[in-house]
Amino acid sequence: MVTIDSAITGGDREIVANVLQAALVDLVDVSLQAKQAHWNVTGPTFRSLHLQLDEVVTLAREHADVVAERAAALGISPDGRVKTLADSVQTPQLDSGYLQAELVAESIAALLLMVVYRFRDYVEQTDEADPVTQDLLIAATQGLEQQHWMFQAMTVES
Amino acid sequence: MVTIDSAITGGDREIVANVLQAALVDLVDVSLQAKQAHWNVTGPTFRSLHLQLDEVVTLAREHADVVAERAAALGISPDGRVKTLADSVQTPQLDSGYLQAELVAESIAALLLMVVYRFRDYVEQTDEADPVTQDLLIAATQGLEQQHWMFQAMTVES
Amino acid sequence: MVTIDSAITGGDREIVANVLQAALVDLVDVSLQAKQAHWNVTGPTFRSLHLQLDEVVTLAREHADVVAERAAALGISPDGRVKTLADSVQTPQLDSGYLQAELVAESIAALLLMVVYRFRDYVEQTDEADPVTQDLLIAATQGLEQQHWMFQAMTVES
Amino acid sequence: MVTIDSAITGGDREIVANVLQAALVDLVDVSLQAKQAHWNVTGPTFRSLHLQLDEVVTLAREHADVVAERAAALGISPDGRVKTLADSVQTPQLDSGYLQAELVAESIAALLLMVVYRFRDYVEQTDEADPVTQDLLIAATQGLEQQHWMFQAMTVES
Amino acid sequence: MVTIDSAITGGDREIVANVLQAALVDLVDVSLQAKQAHWNVTGPTFRSLHLQLDEVVTLAREHADVVAERAAALGISPDGRVKTLADSVQTPQLDSGYLQAELVAESIAALLLMVVYRFRDYVEQTDEADPVTQDLLIAATQGLEQQHWMFQAMTVES
Amino acid sequence: MVTIDSAITGGDREIVANVLQAALVDLVDVSLQAKQAHWNVTGPTFRSLHLQLDEVVTLAREHADVVAERAAALGISPDGRVKTLADSVQTPQLDSGYLQAELVAESIAALLLMVVYRFRDYVEQTDEADPVTQDLLIAATQGLEQQHWMFQAMTVES
Amino acid sequence: MVTIDSAITGGDREIVANVLQAALVDLVDVSLQAKQAHWNVTGPTFRSLHLQLDEVVTLAREHADVVAERAAALGISPDGRVKTLADSVQTPQLDSGYLQAELVAESIAALLLMVVYRFRDYVEQTDEADPVTQDLLIAATQGLEQQHWMFQAMTVES
Amino acid sequence: MVTIDSAITGGDREIVANVLQAALVDLVDVSLQAKQAHWNVTGPTFRSLHLQLDEVVTLAREHADVVAERAAALGISPDGRVKTLADSVQTPQLDSGYLQAELVAESIAALLLMVVYRFRDYVEQTDEADPVTQDLLIAATQGLEQQHWMFQAMTVES
Amino acid sequence: MVTIDSAITGGDREIVANVLQAALVDLVDVSLQAKQAHWNVTGPTFRSLHLQLDEVVTLAREHADVVAERAAALGISPDGRVKTLADSVQTPQLDSGYLQAELVAESIAALLLMVVYRFRDYVEQTDEADPVTQDLLIAATQGLEQQHWMFQAMTVES
Amino acid sequence: MVTIDSAITGGDREIVANVLQAALVDLVDVSLQAKQAHWNVTGPTFRSLHLQLDEVVTLAREHADVVAERAAALGISPDGRVKTLADSVQTPQLDSGYLQAELVAESIAALLLMVVYRFRDYVEQTDEADPVTQDLLIAATQGLEQQHWMFQAMTVES
Amino acid sequence: MVTIDSAITGGDREIVANVLQAALVDLVDVSLQAKQAHWNVTGPTFRSLHLQLDEVVTLAREHADVVAERAAALGISPDGRVKTLADSVQTPQLDSGYLQAELVAESIAALLLMVVYRFRDYVEQTDEADPVTQDLLIAATQGLEQQHWMFQAMTVES
Amino acid sequence: MVTIDSAITGGDREIVANVLQAALVDLVDVSLQAKQAHWNVTGPTFRSLHLQLDEVVTLAREHADVVAERAAALGISPDGRVKTLADSVQTPQLDSGYLQAELVAESIAALLLMVVYRFRDYVEQTDEADPVTQDLLIAATQGLEQQHWMFQAMTVES
Repeated sequence: MVTIDSAITGGDREIVANVLQAALVDLVDVSLQAKQAHWNVTGPTFRSLHLQLDEVVTLAREHADVVAERAAALGISPDGRVKTLADSVQTPQLDSGYLQAELVAESIAALLLMVVYRFRDYVEQTDEADPVTQDLLIAATQGLEQQHWMFQAMTVES
Repeated sequence: MVTIDSAITGGDREIVANVLQAALVDLVDVSLQAKQAHWNVTGPTFRSLHLQLDEVVTLAREHADVVAERAAALGISPDGRVKTLADSVQTPQLDSGYLQAELVAESIAALLLMVVYRFRDYVEQTDEADPVTQDLLIAATQGLEQQHWMFQAMTVES
Repeated sequence: MVTIDSAITGGDREIVANVLQAALVDLVDVSLQAKQAHWNVTGPTFRSLHLQLDEVVTLAREHADVVAERAAALGISPDGRVKTLADSVQTPQLDSGYLQAELVAESIAALLLMVVYRFRDYVEQTDEADPVTQDLLIAATQGLEQQHWMFQAMTVES
Repeated sequence: MVTIDSAITGGDREIVANVLQAALVDLVDVSLQAKQAHWNVTGPTFRSLHLQLDEVVTLAREHADVVAERAAALGISPDGRVKTLADSVQTPQLDSGYLQAELVAESIAALLLMVVYRFRDYVEQTDEADPVTQDLLIAATQGLEQQHWMFQAMTVES
Repeated sequence: MVTIDSAITGGDREIVANVLQAALVDLVDVSLQAKQAHWNVTGPTFRSLHLQLDEVVTLAREHADVVAERAAALGISPDGRVKTLADSVQTPQLDSGYLQAELVAESIAALLLMVVYRFRDYVEQTDEADPVTQDLLIAATQGLEQQHWMFQAMTVES
Repeated sequence: MVTIDSAITGGDREIVANVLQAALVDLVDVSLQAKQAHWNVTGPTFRSLHLQLDEVVTLAREHADVVAERAAALGISPDGRVKTLADSVQTPQLDSGYLQAELVAESIAALLLMVVYRFRDYVEQTDEADPVTQDLLIAATQGLEQQHWMFQAMTVES
Repeated sequence: MVTIDSAITGGDREIVANVLQAALVDLVDVSLQAKQAHWNVTGPTFRSLHLQLDEVVTLAREHADVVAERAAALGISPDGRVKTLADSVQTPQLDSGYLQAELVAESIAALLLMVVYRFRDYVEQTDEADPVTQDLLIAATQGLEQQHWMFQAMTVES
Repeated sequence: MVTIDSAITGGDREIVANVLQAALVDLVDVSLQAKQAHWNVTGPTFRSLHLQLDEVVTLAREHADVVAERAAALGISPDGRVKTLADSVQTPQLDSGYLQAELVAESIAALLLMVVYRFRDYVEQTDEADPVTQDLLIAATQGLEQQHWMFQAMTVES
Repeated sequence: MVTIDSAITGGDREIVANVLQAALVDLVDVSLQAKQAHWNVTGPTFRSLHLQLDEVVTLAREHADVVAERAAALGISPDGRVKTLADSVQTPQLDSGYLQAELVAESIAALLLMVVYRFRDYVEQTDEADPVTQDLLIAATQGLEQQHWMFQAMTVES
Repeated sequence: MVTIDSAITGGDREIVANVLQAALVDLVDVSLQAKQAHWNVTGPTFRSLHLQLDEVVTLAREHADVVAERAAALGISPDGRVKTLADSVQTPQLDSGYLQAELVAESIAALLLMVVYRFRDYVEQTDEADPVTQDLLIAATQGLEQQHWMFQAMTVES
Repeated sequence: MVTIDSAITGGDREIVANVLQAALVDLVDVSLQAKQAHWNVTGPTFRSLHLQLDEVVTLAREHADVVAERAAALGISPDGRVKTLADSVQTPQLDSGYLQAELVAESIAALLLMVVYRFRDYVEQTDEADPVTQDLLIAATQGLEQQHWMFQAMTVES
Repeated sequence: MVTIDSAITGGDREIVANVLQAALVDLVDVSLQAKQAHWNVTGPTFRSLHLQLDEVVTLAREHADVVAERAAALGISPDGRVKTLADSVQTPQLDSGYLQAELVAESIAALLLMVVYRFRDYVEQTDEADPVTQDLLIAATQGLEQQHWMFQAMTVES
């Protein structure tokens, strides 16, 4: 069996391993849900949501890649296989079928807020264990919080 | 419930709906497996495989988007949610953990060949039903066959 | 009188000539109507429609150029003069004056659907006559169907 | 009925409205005729004329968009619909069919000169009414005069 | 005390000095108000307004720089310091806090119209005094009027 | 009244709100003062300072936007209106009129040092309250310290 | 001996193998003849032909690469070696030495027409055998026919 | 003898002809003198002047081309031959040999001011004769005045 | 003697000074050793290592520049002179002559791991002393750890 | 018969003519052989060789064009027709069929070395005859020698 | 009087000084004559010549800059002032007024050939004196000879 | 021990080996000294020198890479390790600490002149041994002489 060594070992390594795998699942989850909404959204603000959702996809994919390569670099094999993802995701999933715009905005805002809470926890957990990993997670959190605000702003009634 | 109309109806619509949904699952599957291998590959040819696998990811993501938007355009809501994917994929999945280079090349070559056979079938099915959809599937097939060749070429012993 | 020869002759040439000239008129018609709407749309979703309509203009102009040069390449002089266009267009035209957003979305969706039906017919007609011409028309149809979906999605009530 | 207000009112607004609508028709006319020639030109200098004519198309389309958006910005709904164009154009039109190079150069030079005279008149009319509109028309005139020179230069015998 | 000479002197110089300083204040004011709205806008059309407002910011900053450098080039030191701005602005200011989309569209449309009137006056004042300065102000006016139309168009009820 | 929620609440939210608003004022202040100097600097090193000052403007504007959007994302409405700025700035302001190069270099170096001290304090304050906000402020501090060095280096006598 | 497998076998494979090898020879032939003309053309229209011929070279090289990689991907080793090419080309070759412009335009138009006929035959042959290969050949045919028209247009007397 | 016609005739044509030829000479003169200084400047501010002078060269060359093509477009053959230039330039010329930085800044500032005065006169002369030409000259004047300011600013003592 | 002031003084300054100088030496060392390997590597995987090593060079050079400018910005003169480097490097150096691929992969992996340990220590040392410096070092550590993984992955036997 | 004159005549012209024609054949030969290998290579290092071989193709094509245009510019008609090439090439040719990676690396290294020897001879021959031609051949030699090294390095056993 | 030292002194310096100054005059002469023709050319091949002439202008300007900076770098002040140019040019000058296409092609071909002869002499003169200068002149000669061929090719009768 | 063969052998190879290794040391030395000055320069012309020095770094790094790869291509293993560099450099080194602008300009000018003399010697030595190597060294010499002039020009008193 192949192994990769790194400068992080022991308990720190275990904490970081758990956090990075959980973050990977969250980010792939966000990318898949945002794509689902990107394809199925309808309503007068279709174009705005269609484009904004693709920005979420790009954001989530980029951070997922950074998080997975960080794990690989620390000797922790990342697992982004579809059945692992399906078994691990803990967020409510979008309904099937075309979706109305308000519902999309609200669902994605709720999804992002839930993931933000999880990431703020990951940031805390890695504070002692590995400041480099923490720094990557802080950057991801910032992006997720920014998108959360934008989708929340869209749900304010006019 | 929201509906979208299109110029394709009746039996043709049903054929196209089934094909596009199946093709979407295949392409997201390829993108997730190629990413998994991209992160976990090891061996002297690490860099070549790491980069080649990301080309597969890009290829699969782009065709997945085209296929899903084609479905949406025909009034067929595409379903790319993680549990749908996990329930629908019919290909063997990569093992967890780091992977040796030869194994990666062989596994991805086998995966791509299986998907190529499926796509050649989709192309046939849509010949009568919708030449526009068929054209998109032909383009995807070409890309998948080209990648299949490249991974197969890497498995030839020197 | 100047003539240009090509490898397509006889009945095939006549079919292709009629189809390409009709497709040219349709595409210039779409480009002019989308520009008219681009300039005259109003409402809270002004920006989204203003930008989306310009994508339709670009799409229609590019395919019009491909279609006209295809005709020229086959020895069929394309005719895109304004009076020819005015005499040939068979689609309902937008009203004069500024236009409300919903009306624009609905009118353009209806226009695009009508043109999609015509193009699906052109694709069928050229199946035997000239597969190269057919391939260009399939590509145009795909773009028109994608835009039709997007404008239709905007007409779904929120 | 939707209206848009602006800082230009009264008689000035009427002058500007007439000028901008006339200029829009001229520019779309130039763009359509130059495209017609772009597709149908023949002769040893085919490539030079084919490319030069597309520069005229680009020039005319860009100024048409500026002119129409200027009208819209002043509360004057621009009308670029195909039947309006067909009824309003006052220039001689190209013959149908493929066209010899000299004839193309001469016809386009003549067309451009006629339009230049009209634009110089528009510039004069808007001098008092609206210097901003005048500025846009001056820029369009410069481009048209430059193209007129180039086509005229091509008609000089060698 | 440092001085810079130029070809414009006497009464012309005084007129131009007053106009350019006033225009600078107006343009910085527009850039700050548009940024304030860019950050605080909410509602279903959040994305459209958020992006459109940043185009206003870019427009206002570019013209402010041109106007200030024009002043500097004529030996007239431009004053864009924050207290000068606060003392000179004559437009109504946005409320503090998050803002609803309709209100933003209306407020920015009103702001831009007010500034357009001021710029049309600056254009008139500089007609005799300095045609070069006038030309820069005409270009700024065009951009402001175009943005005014777009925000006004967004306020039309659907 | 519109509100936006976020994962940061209670005392942490209050700290972060005060820090972000203060940082926003500082950064807009820097951008306005650097532009003022950019326009009014004179002396043999005019070009170097003119260009270097625009780099400060770009730096300050980018961080101001990040800081303001961070506030908005946390449910804290940022206030960048001109009168708020004028009432809040606590730095010495540049004199009016053209400015000699040495004086510019010294004034901007002093301004930047003062702002650096304030940012180092903001970084400390947010250490517990919100590591994501702290990370943004650290990045801003680095940029400000780098510019401070460059302007200070220019004040060393040769 | 190395072999590569693919999803196409039996008689289909034989048809496709013959077609792709023949198409490869044709395309390399076109690229070499167009380069030969690019270097040796003379006459008043030198520049137009020199540039247009390089577009033919680029077109032929790109399609040759696609065709050869398609063969390789199907387990059919492509053969583009110089002696194979010399033995296989079936088109008349250009004379040695500098060439007059008319002669170049006529020769290249004739060469392209001959190759177009061959490609239209390849398209027909692969209709059943492999729609993916057919699609690539259709795209190549379109490019060749477009270039044929342009060179033919240049041979029309003025 | 070859002639080119245009919409400007009679006395207007004569005025415009004289102005454009004079402006062409001025602009080529500026480009040659700025290049001469670009090559020969020395002193601690070498780099700043070397780069700034090349911006003047670019500016002068671009406006010279616009001015000359404007003349050609109006049927007025522009004359930029070296002996015509040598006979027509009316500005003091730089000394031969390497040049000290202060001297360069002062000489170029003086040269630009002299040319600015001439261009302000050209703008006035063409006001009635041809507003299109006037517009081009206004744009050139703005660029020259901006460069004049920058070189003058460099001559202020520190 | 020239001095530069900054907001960091006393013991913090001493810590940061030592860390930044040590980090600078490490990064220049990595850049020189990676270049040496880039030039001297041999073996079937030559191309992969040749390119990957240049990515290490680019990474090390960029972080070296950031680290040195950070020192300069804090009033700590960075020392990257060749003799200082030669006296300070504490890593094993590559042998002279051409190098086999496996040896290169192993040596560079070992070098990077050693430097990673040193950087993790620098990160710890600067935690209290200067969070801005720490942030830069964390970013460098991430890059070094990522490269370490990639070279280590290449050493896994196939 | 068309002729082109140049400044090189007599014996020098004969030497240069022979050298340039021979160099052209060599370079087209290299481009065709490298493409053949690019398509047919197999083995674990497939990707590295596939990409490296295309760099050889690009290199050889660019120098072939420079060499042929140099000949044309000197009044020496270059001959790159396929039968001329087939009759003139003096290098061993690759076998047909798919090729193993080691064999490809060795064959291309041997081919390049043979061509390098020929080019070093061309450089010597043109030393007196035409330094401009010699300079082009030196540049080509450098590129060929660099590629020779890289392929040779790949043949070193690990 | 300012002086610049270099590694080239004595007789070598004198030779190089004369050659570089002469080459500078030749290149500025070519750039001015090509611009003159660019503006005044007429005839059916107007566009081809208009564009080709601007490539000559670009070529001549770039080499003029290289040559002049080479002189400056060797302590030889280059002199590109208009009166120096007018007194030094030794080539026949174009007639005033619009020019027919054939005449332009012949005149520019003759001009370029004359300059090529001069440059071949400069190359010879600098062989011993300074190989670096010689290398720059060889590059300029190549460009001039290539352009000479192209203009000569255009003069061949069709 | 790994060896690489090339077409250069015997005494020529020895000469070239010595020259290339010496040139490599010189160029890395220049790159390190220019970076040292880039970080430590102070004074009113800080920005100009800071940027100009980075151009020297880029120049030296690029030529160092070319020189080292040339050596590797000829079978001469280049040695750029830090201790080899420290033992081989023969130029005076910059003092530690921040440096005043004049001193920097003078020191770098002196360094570059010394290296120019060495490179002129390398060019001479390789004239017979290898014209390809000589050509690379001539290009490097030109760049070094150009930078030497620019730094020398900055030391001229104003």
